[in-house]
Amino acid sequence: MRTPALMTDLYQLTMAAGYFRHGLQDKRVSFELFVRRLPEHRRYLVMAGLETVLGYLRELRFTEGQIAYLREVPALRGAFSYEFVEYLRDFRFQGDVWAMPEGTVCFAREPLLRITGTLLETQLVETFLLSAINTETGVASKAARIMQAAGDRQVLEFGSRRTSPEEAVLSARAAYVAGFAATSNVEAGYRFDVPVAGTAAHSWTMSHASEEEAFTHYADAFPKHTYLLVDTYDTVEGTRRAIAAAGSRLRGVRLDSGDLLTLSREVRRLLDEAGLTETEIIASGDLEEHRITELRRQGAPINGYGVGTELVRPSDSPTIGGVYKLVYDHSADRPVAKLSEGKETLPGLHQVYRIKRHGKSERDVVGTLAEFHVDAEPLLVEWLQKGKLVRPLPTLAQVRATARKELAALPDRLHRLDPARPEEAYEVSISDGLSNLIGEVRRQQH
Amino acid sequence: MRTPALMTDLYQLTMAAGYFRHGLQDKRVSFELFVRRLPEHRRYLVMAGLETVLGYLRELRFTEGQIAYLREVPALRGAFSYEFVEYLRDFRFQGDVWAMPEGTVCFAREPLLRITGTLLETQLVETFLLSAINTETGVASKAARIMQAAGDRQVLEFGSRRTSPEEAVLSARAAYVAGFAATSNVEAGYRFDVPVAGTAAHSWTMSHASEEEAFTHYADAFPKHTYLLVDTYDTVEGTRRAIAAAGSRLRGVRLDSGDLLTLSREVRRLLDEAGLTETEIIASGDLEEHRITELRRQGAPINGYGVGTELVRPSDSPTIGGVYKLVYDHSADRPVAKLSEGKETLPGLHQVYRIKRHGKSERDVVGTLAEFHVDAEPLLVEWLQKGKLVRPLPTLAQVRATARKELAALPDRLHRLDPARPEEAYEVSISDGLSNLIGEVRRQQH
Repeated sequence: MRTPALMTDLYQLTMAAGYFRHGLQDKRVSFELFVRRLPEHRRYLVMAGLETVLGYLRELRFTEGQIAYLREVPALRGAFSYEFVEYLRDFRFQGDVWAMPEGTVCFAREPLLRITGTLLETQLVETFLLSAINTETGVASKAARIMQAAGDRQVLEFGSRRTSPEEAVLSARAAYVAGFAATSNVEAGYRFDVPVAGTAAHSWTMSHASEEEAFTHYADAFPKHTYLLVDTYDTVEGTRRAIAAAGSRLRGVRLDSGDLLTLSREVRRLLDEAGLTETEIIASGDLEEHRITELRRQGAPINGYGVGTELVRPSDSPTIGGVYKLVYDHSADRPVAKLSEGKETLPGLHQVYRIKRHGKSERDVVGTLAEFHVDAEPLLVEWLQKGKLVRPLPTLAQVRATARKELAALPDRLHRLDPARPEEAYEVSISDGLSNLIGEVRRQQH
Repeated sequence: MRTPALMTDLYQLTMAAGYFRHGLQDKRVSFELFVRRLPEHRRYLVMAGLETVLGYLRELRFTEGQIAYLREVPALRGAFSYEFVEYLRDFRFQGDVWAMPEGTVCFAREPLLRITGTLLETQLVETFLLSAINTETGVASKAARIMQAAGDRQVLEFGSRRTSPEEAVLSARAAYVAGFAATSNVEAGYRFDVPVAGTAAHSWTMSHASEEEAFTHYADAFPKHTYLLVDTYDTVEGTRRAIAAAGSRLRGVRLDSGDLLTLSREVRRLLDEAGLTETEIIASGDLEEHRITELRRQGAPINGYGVGTELVRPSDSPTIGGVYKLVYDHSADRPVAKLSEGKETLPGLHQVYRIKRHGKSERDVVGTLAEFHVDAEPLLVEWLQKGKLVRPLPTLAQVRATARKELAALPDRLHRLDPARPEEAYEVSISDGLSNLIGEVRRQQH
């Protein structure tokens, strides 16, 4: 049996063993997960990955095989005591988790998630939490930009072959959260109910004796779903053949190479001349938000876009760089912060208050838990209490609706796709209460 | 039960259903997987991902739940016939696979893998094969560059938090294949026997009342493995405290922020003054091959490097862009090629012949299977025959040895880290036999 219990950095286990040896394993602490700075090409992020995280925390346990391995980790032979490894055998996560719901738009310095529990359990799970939230939030955030470019045109997620098999499934879900219409990844449909969609591949055409035969066979097999890829040999000629083979059954054609503006106009003309005015043109091939913006600006008659590589492996901002930092030592009732230059953290437990005006998000305040801001919406809500779910997990449709509402509430300038000038950034301020606390912690540490 | 059977693009299943409907599902074909062009910042690739692929092909089957889902895929309701879905219920991969062993250095246009089987099975597996090989080969190829920069210094893989949980495990393995000394990812140690290593985190220090106490506790818990992270508050002061707390037990210190050149010199001086001349300095924090090269050129006294983000999410070349193309229709005894501009493929079945001189790789020739090149080493070997393993899987140590030998045999110019000028590229030519075949196919298609 595979469990994710060992999907962690060795030092999490080393530190856990160290805490255990000194009787500190049950000391109660809080960690918060946040992004220090937005990547250059992101004006906001879209929270995703929480469902993965909550599933992991609720299922977390060590198998006999893993326990046996820990007794023998070559790098640390003998460093893990018998008692510590026995402790792990019965380990279950029993902490509390507060987090922004998936689909929430968020910004730098804002805690996306807070976890409170024993030093041992909160430390052990750091790697997985960062891994899931960095990845899925990264994809959802890029997907939101692509949707901004696409406007009312549908975008299909085609990235599976450009990322690892399991990440492909999570990425398909994250893209759907942020507004993509569907994915080609069938497992994402099976596991998460993401709508699946697709056309055909070049190999369909190439495995038939001729393009005509390939198209005729496809239309016969899928009379209600005839989407044909027409660029295997020559896009214009391929379109003529598609029209001849499928006639009124031709629901759509896909273009995957060449000059998409010129070709889409030519293909549209051919389709219209054949009376196929409802037949859609889908474009794919190294597309991202800037290329889609340009095609739309030029009036390319494209009904939908397929996006893959640049969604799952964005070249503009490959990572969002979330971090997970100790903020509170409950045993000592002491807020904690790290002061190394450029890597500062906010001490204490935080809530993010979003202040809206006329339905638009105006600014956020990061404050302490005790604060109250008139007309402000607190973004962090409780999910786990002593390891148990205390709130129903939103359905994927609800998460998607949250993202839609949140993105619509953003000030228009945040939807621009170029890097933000400092004065264009969304305002995230520190409350007076939190400012005072930072000052206190600073004085104590100096 | 989870199986990877649905980790595929919908169109693979759609096309499979289409082939099935027309009785073409058993038609015998070959596909080859290759990279069209090397990414700008790669002078070569290091093959990885084959073990993942072979495991997938050997285990591939559909569960009852997946079968039930396929009967109801909303996008295609009714498009998959009862008989087709029943066929999938008993489906097993029974094709043949030839591929370069993991650790092989490879180049653009060279098939890394060839699969021969029924149209249905070879098409169904495309997505997973690309996914695994693109990801793992991408990481191994970046890792080889980082090792080139690090020379005889050890490099530790610290990327788990910057990629998704399962990809982190595969990435740790791929980095080890290409020469990394160890990983922090414990699951990679458990599953693949990759050596694991680690130090401590800032939270260890922050969860104690003082840095002194934190360091003393760590040295007491791990007297033989005392690696301390010294930059939580002030690196120089932290080093003094580490020396005071651990004394001769101090195996190493890690610097994770600030000016690594200046700090490493200062830290080295303090360690040497305390007689700790064997104590190592490990540096981490957004490192990659260029930064490591610079630190070494400047003589930074750093004994080992930790690399994470830039390994698993390289900003220079985020993807390698492998593709999978139909090359042969065995039923019609017909080589197949795609001719769309910029997306051409090589028709027919290929072998890659590597010509060495004085132990150095001089050039490669992509030829047909029937060819024989004196003193040339054929790189593709058979792994699966009718779905069964016909050659023992190399151990991870063997794969790593292959990579070491292959990298050492590369001409020196290929180890440079800047983008290659055209005249610096490794020579990959097309054999006369293959040139003739390309000409024939071109004439037939035009």
